[in-house]
Amino acid sequence: MTLDRTTVQNAQLALLLEVAGTPKPGNVDREHDYPDLHFEHFLAGAVGTYEGFSMMADGEPIGTGFERAIAGMSNQRGGNTQFGAVLLLTPLVAAASQRELTPDGTTAIVDATTVDDTVAFYKAFDHVDVAVSEPPEGMAPLDIRYGSEAEAAIRERGISLGELMAESASVDGIASEWTSGFKRTFEAADALLRRDGPVTERAAAVFLALLASEPDTFVIDKHDRETAIEVQQRAEAALEGDENVNDLAEEFIARGINPGTTADIVAGGLFVALERGMEV
Amino acid sequence: MTLDRTTVQNAQLALLLEVAGTPKPGNVDREHDYPDLHFEHFLAGAVGTYEGFSMMADGEPIGTGFERAIAGMSNQRGGNTQFGAVLLLTPLVAAASQRELTPDGTTAIVDATTVDDTVAFYKAFDHVDVAVSEPPEGMAPLDIRYGSEAEAAIRERGISLGELMAESASVDGIASEWTSGFKRTFEAADALLRRDGPVTERAAAVFLALLASEPDTFVIDKHDRETAIEVQQRAEAALEGDENVNDLAEEFIARGINPGTTADIVAGGLFVALERGMEV
Repeated sequence: MTLDRTTVQNAQLALLLEVAGTPKPGNVDREHDYPDLHFEHFLAGAVGTYEGFSMMADGEPIGTGFERAIAGMSNQRGGNTQFGAVLLLTPLVAAASQRELTPDGTTAIVDATTVDDTVAFYKAFDHVDVAVSEPPEGMAPLDIRYGSEAEAAIRERGISLGELMAESASVDGIASEWTSGFKRTFEAADALLRRDGPVTERAAAVFLALLASEPDTFVIDKHDRETAIEVQQRAEAALEGDENVNDLAEEFIARGINPGTTADIVAGGLFVALERGMEV
Repeated sequence: MTLDRTTVQNAQLALLLEVAGTPKPGNVDREHDYPDLHFEHFLAGAVGTYEGFSMMADGEPIGTGFERAIAGMSNQRGGNTQFGAVLLLTPLVAAASQRELTPDGTTAIVDATTVDDTVAFYKAFDHVDVAVSEPPEGMAPLDIRYGSEAEAAIRERGISLGELMAESASVDGIASEWTSGFKRTFEAADALLRRDGPVTERAAAVFLALLASEPDTFVIDKHDRETAIEVQQRAEAALEGDENVNDLAEEFIARGINPGTTADIVAGGLFVALERGMEV
């Protein structure tokens, strides 16, 4: 006789389970902090997303819901805790509530985005500093770092949020999910559901497998491609037992290498798995 | 430019910060699990309280809100994660929303409880197994272990939830807070606000100080008074640097000694401190 979690609560719990999974080499987790970015900032960040996720679940424009979720997430002193994870979760939450939580359902949500969603997405950057790369060629007026000041340029260009993501899909692991029907996210969910044991341990294992499978685009943006490929190869070595995963966690944190995109995909996978009945 | 947390979100965040504080000798925390009671169960428990806390904040009868919060909390496989903490938070959330978050405000909430609140409180025991002691003399028909089946006896007795708590105040640390204007809870909030540094570290320090100040009534119920006094004395020794607090945590967990009431009061103190502007 328990009360079922809502879709919004599953999104929030996915963020919490993601950060609690350990060891997740390079990222804040239950056992690792950065000097100015602590576990508790992620707890407050997750709590703060509630209203934004509720707006998405209620069918409000997803750009507006996203912006609200980021405004709530930012009410802590750690800075950008879950920007990418919330961005990844946004079409998933909308699909689970308004359509169906499948590749087709998420693609329908992405295809239905508008220019207003793009404007709201840019506005979200006013709330928090996010590490981003230079805009693609021809996109300088839409540099995301302009935040809400880019509104006129966005409206002139008439670009929907789905179209904006498509422009970045080749260089950004989250944009790539948006435009691929959330391929890696649904695969992560399947892997989480296949495994047994505590969910946070499954999340850590799936994180490592994802990290070994592709270069993390957040590491490329923040460091360079060479570093991201090293991270991928060493995660592969850890998977094969040739590296100690706890040592790897210490080393990556000391070097400031936090594979954020991979963590975001794990959060998305956790959400899908929770919606499909994974018990905690 | 961030979105303020609501009272409901502060209650939820208090539960999360409480469990993340480490070391908290004997309890699940960021670094300690019990074999069948894991950190992740507390994350899911906290997420599940949302609707119940919202009902309290909206002015619904607090017994009903409490019962709903426990139904939501129980949607995880660890069992009783935060029953006591939610019970402690209930008048605090109602006072913060409907009156003022002061000893007088909470007392007004407790004084306004009804027989219906008692019935709903008993019903909450249907959702989860809670360790409780034998009922006080003359209270056998109201044994809390009857859950919703005690309704007729409760109505015949005509006892409000505030009156029920008063009956147990001498043997139960949470009931004692209900009937004392939440004395130790407000003191814990002051101590949290006076300290600096990460909130989870402050929470762990305040936990240890509270544990050293009084025998934990949950330990008395689950073990005996002798054990609770040993716990209190050894916490005092840890405070004075004569015991290693991490070793104490390992030992208490190995012995199954989890000072739950003290943790509940820390959760209440965190809520009050968050409402009074403590930043995370």
